[in-house]
Formats: sequence, C-alpha cells, structure tokens
Amino acid sequence: MTIVRVFAPGSIGNLGPGLDIIGLAVGGAGDSVTAERTRGGQIEVAEAGHPTLSTDPDRHAAAIAAAAVFRLARRRTGLRIWCEKGLPLAGGQGGSAASAVAGAVAANLLVGSPLDATRLMEAALVAEEAVAGRHLDNIAPALLGGMTLIRSIDPIDVIRLRVPARLRIVLAKPSYELRTRDGRSALPDTVSRSTALYQAAQVAGVVAGATTGDLALLGRSIDDRIAEPARAPLLPGFVEAKAAALAAGSLGCSISGSGPTIFALAADDRTARRIGLAIARSYRRSGFETTLRIGSVDSTGARERPIVRRPTSR
Amino acid sequence: MTIVRVFAPGSIGNLGPGLDIIGLAVGGAGDSVTAERTRGGQIEVAEAGHPTLSTDPDRHAAAIAAAAVFRLARRRTGLRIWCEKGLPLAGGQGGSAASAVAGAVAANLLVGSPLDATRLMEAALVAEEAVAGRHLDNIAPALLGGMTLIRSIDPIDVIRLRVPARLRIVLAKPSYELRTRDGRSALPDTVSRSTALYQAAQVAGVVAGATTGDLALLGRSIDDRIAEPARAPLLPGFVEAKAAALAAGSLGCSISGSGPTIFALAADDRTARRIGLAIARSYRRSGFETTLRIGSVDSTGARERPIVRRPTSR
Repeated sequence: MTIVRVFAPGSIGNLGPGLDIIGLAVGGAGDSVTAERTRGGQIEVAEAGHPTLSTDPDRHAAAIAAAAVFRLARRRTGLRIWCEKGLPLAGGQGGSAASAVAGAVAANLLVGSPLDATRLMEAALVAEEAVAGRHLDNIAPALLGGMTLIRSIDPIDVIRLRVPARLRIVLAKPSYELRTRDGRSALPDTVSRSTALYQAAQVAGVVAGATTGDLALLGRSIDDRIAEPARAPLLPGFVEAKAAALAAGSLGCSISGSGPTIFALAADDRTARRIGLAIARSYRRSGFETTLRIGSVDSTGARERPIVRRPTSR
Repeated sequence: MTIVRVFAPGSIGNLGPGLDIIGLAVGGAGDSVTAERTRGGQIEVAEAGHPTLSTDPDRHAAAIAAAAVFRLARRRTGLRIWCEKGLPLAGGQGGSAASAVAGAVAANLLVGSPLDATRLMEAALVAEEAVAGRHLDNIAPALLGGMTLIRSIDPIDVIRLRVPARLRIVLAKPSYELRTRDGRSALPDTVSRSTALYQAAQVAGVVAGATTGDLALLGRSIDDRIAEPARAPLLPGFVEAKAAALAAGSLGCSISGSGPTIFALAADDRTARRIGLAIARSYRRSGFETTLRIGSVDSTGARERPIVRRPTSR
C-alpha cells in the first residue's frame, strides 16, 4: 500500500461535566487525510486543508501525528499529506484531534499497522499537545467513535462506551472566535471538595446514562460546576442560548470543548431541529449568527475512505 | 398489619473514589428492626440492639427514621421497636444506615406504604444525619441493594446500578476503632482541579465497570486520591494490608466508609478467601487482629423477614 485516505469524525470534548475525561464522536463532518509514501525520510504537507493552517510539517496536526507514529513504530519513510478540513479550525468541535487521528491512522496503515489503538492515541496526543493542549477527550472519540471515558492519560487508559443510537446532537457555533488557550486559562486551579464530588457524580451519571440507555439521566447529568461557570462569561449569549435549548426540550446543554461551539442533546430528530432553531434565535437576539449542525453519534471513529482524487506528484 | 420485621443489609460507603456518591450493598450481615403498632403517639425503643446504643427514640437511628416516616407521610401512630444489630456499630460497614433504613421501611409498611423509595431515603437520611452525617451512600444501597450512585442529595436522585453477580467482597475490620467524625475531619476542604478530574474519571470507571460487567475496569478504578490519602494515616496497618490484598489478587482495595473496615474486591470465592487471609496476616504483623467477612453483592436491599420471636408486651 502506497497511498491511503482516512477520515476521522468531529467530536465534543469536555462533554458537560467531563472536563478532559469524556468525549463524544459526532456523525457527519470530519477531517480526511490522504497520505502517500514517498522516497526519502521527509514528511511533506502538500495541502494543509485551510489557508490559515501551516504546511510546515512541524506545525500541522496530521503531519506531527504521522511523524510520531513512525517514531513509536521505529519505521522511517517519506510521506506526502493532503488534508481536507471538514471541521472548523478552532470552534470546539475537535478539528485538530480529527486531523491528528486521521494522520496517525493513515501513517500507521502505510507501514503495516504496527501500532494498536492506545499507541495511535499516544501518537495523536503528541500533535494535539503541540496545537491545542495535552488532552485525549477529542482524540479518543475521533479514533474509536462513540463515547469515550479517559480514565487515565498517563498511562493511557481509555474506555469506549456504547451510547443509545437514538441520541441526537445539536452543535451550534455562534459567529465569534475563542482561543482554546483563553478557555483553558479561565479554569480554576482548585475546587472545593463538595464541588469535586458533585462533578464526579455527574460524570458518573453521564456514563451510567449512556451505558444503560437512560437518556434522561445522561441529560440531567450534563451539569458542569467547574468549567462552564468559568467559561460562560467568555461566551456572549451562551447562558441565554442554553436556556432556550432546555426550554425547547433539550436533555442537556453545555459548552463543546472550550467553545464557542455549544452542544445540546435530544432524544429524536424533530426535537433536535426545534432546539437548533431555538438556539439560533437566541444567539440572533444576542447579535450573532449561528452555524448549526445536527447529527447522531459516530459509532465507528476513524476509517479508511475511497481516494476521491488522485494526488498529483509535484 | 400491626407488626412487621424488616432486614436491611450492610454496605460499603465511599466506594473507592466515590466519596459520598457510590455505595455497594453487601450480602450476609445486616440489621433487622421489628416494629409493632401501639396505642398512643409515642415511639418506644424496646431493644436498642446493643448495650452501648441508646433506647432514647431521639437518638436511635431506627426510631428517628420511623418518626421521620410518620412526619413525611402525615400519619400518627405509636410504635414499639426491637432492633437486632448484625453489623458493627461504627466500623464503616453501614450499620447506622441499615438500622435507619430498616426502621423507615418497617414504619412505612405499618401505615400502608405511603412513601416511595426516594421519600424513604429522605426519612432514613434524617436519622443518618443525626447519628453519622448527612450522606446517602450507605442508605441508598441498604434500601435498594446493588450499587447505587448518588447523583444528587438535594433533591435526592439515586441511580441503582447492576453489578456482575460474580463480584466478591472482602470486608476486613482491624481491632481498633475510628470515629466517623475523625475520618471526616481529615478530609481536605479543597482539591486541585487535576485531582478533582482524575477522581471523577475513576468514579466514572467504577460505574462503567459495574454496568458493563468489566470487573477489571471496576477494580483499577478503585483509586481514591481525595479521601484515602487523608485517612490512611489514621488507620495503622492499612497501607500494608492494601498492598497484601492487591498482591493476593484483589481487583481493588480501599477504606470502607470512613474506616477502620477496609474492603477488597475479587472476581471469585477462592481469590476472595486468599485475599482475606493475606489481609489478616498483614494486620497481625502490624499488631492487630482482624474480623473478616466475605460476601456477594446484596442485590435486593431492605426486605421483610419472618418474625422469629414474638415480642412480649411490657
């Protein structure tokens, strides 16, 4: 195999109370990486996927992850990478993780798949750390699909959880930007014991709701007392949009990743559409336009895709 | 119905990382309350169940809980209570909660069961708060059986979780006492964000392991970074006993409730017995005798029992 194309889905990181520890893969949009073996040991980014992304292989998530794969697998080959970004660059929809995972999986396939899922996450984490921060809550769902619990990052111990297929996810991105770094620096360094334990109970409620198919429990456990109160002031219109989502029948609503995208959960398509409209209407009242996406859970994660256009050698 | 006898099982509170939020009912020993309707509005404790327990109805868990049931149900009747303590008084095996739950269920039965499970927990919580502290992590499993997640105490939202039937539990009480109050005052008021999130991931791991039948996951998630480090110094020989339990094949081991009882989980009877012996040997080296109990999960919780001896009127 000398050329391969791999797709990885977008995801919600920090799912509600699950700051750094719960992620959920969302069907629909994602990033794709086409990788071709080349002579020599260089990794080259032929297409970064977006005008503002660097083609420097030390700064592009897919290329950094591919290099990490070769390092971990002790293989050495040249690579040319074409990246197609289906996800926003920094909106809180797991775009950097999807590119990193797609790059890692593609590189691994090209050298005979020596790395298992845990090692692939390790490789993608090198890229995510360089461009967004050291966390696995987008990488794990982008690779494995479904809901993932990051029990431990060092060593990596990720649990893949089933989620009821009827769950619908509304992703709504208001028309302003927020850098991951700003979202992260707003977080408190310490929390009270009671807040810590309440938060732990909500994370457990999310997991119990998902694994037992109790969507109402999953929804009411989306109650984040650590990150959301710290980040909400950075996100104009969020509080109102969340209230609108809940009033429209959402099971639970919070910030996706570190924002500005927000997510709202629903038990069926019709309610999901109603929620989407209610959120968009609310942001409009706050002076912002909204990009909406409604999807199901992506339960597959990263996968090979047909090569749609033959990369031309340069 | 004028007389009834109700049994409630013992339980592990603070299951590993689940301080105040996860409890597990343990089969075997428990407390029983026989309650008989009497004329007049008084609640009388005919047998406290142990020489050191008060027969003052304002200070006995079963009587306080029964009074709370009548208050919540807006019923008024006299009651005479006989309590049989099968559980240690303050060892960390959920004794006060079992007495409270048995008292609440018995009182509720005698007035036609007007209260549902949530209201019964509310009544038992009045008693637990008076004698041990305001937490539900022993009350919920004593009432409902199995593993229980306390998602919220105010309002009460308790999730009953299935646990694999093959799980075995070793309870080991070394020959010294520790007051719940001392165990509680050792807890830190604040924790770092990273500790809070790690703890949350472990609680979620316990729940995911239980609901999906992954005992290895359940076991390795018994990793408490908040209560255990604070309480271990109050429990001579604990660190060594835990190491002995893990070396003998325990899936996970920590303090039961606020101690001094410790629990160790195993996947079968033979390993459970080996763990029990290893713990006892370890405590003996530290200068203590050990009372051992090995059981399965009690998946039923509080239930009526035949009246074995006819209480005599006085």
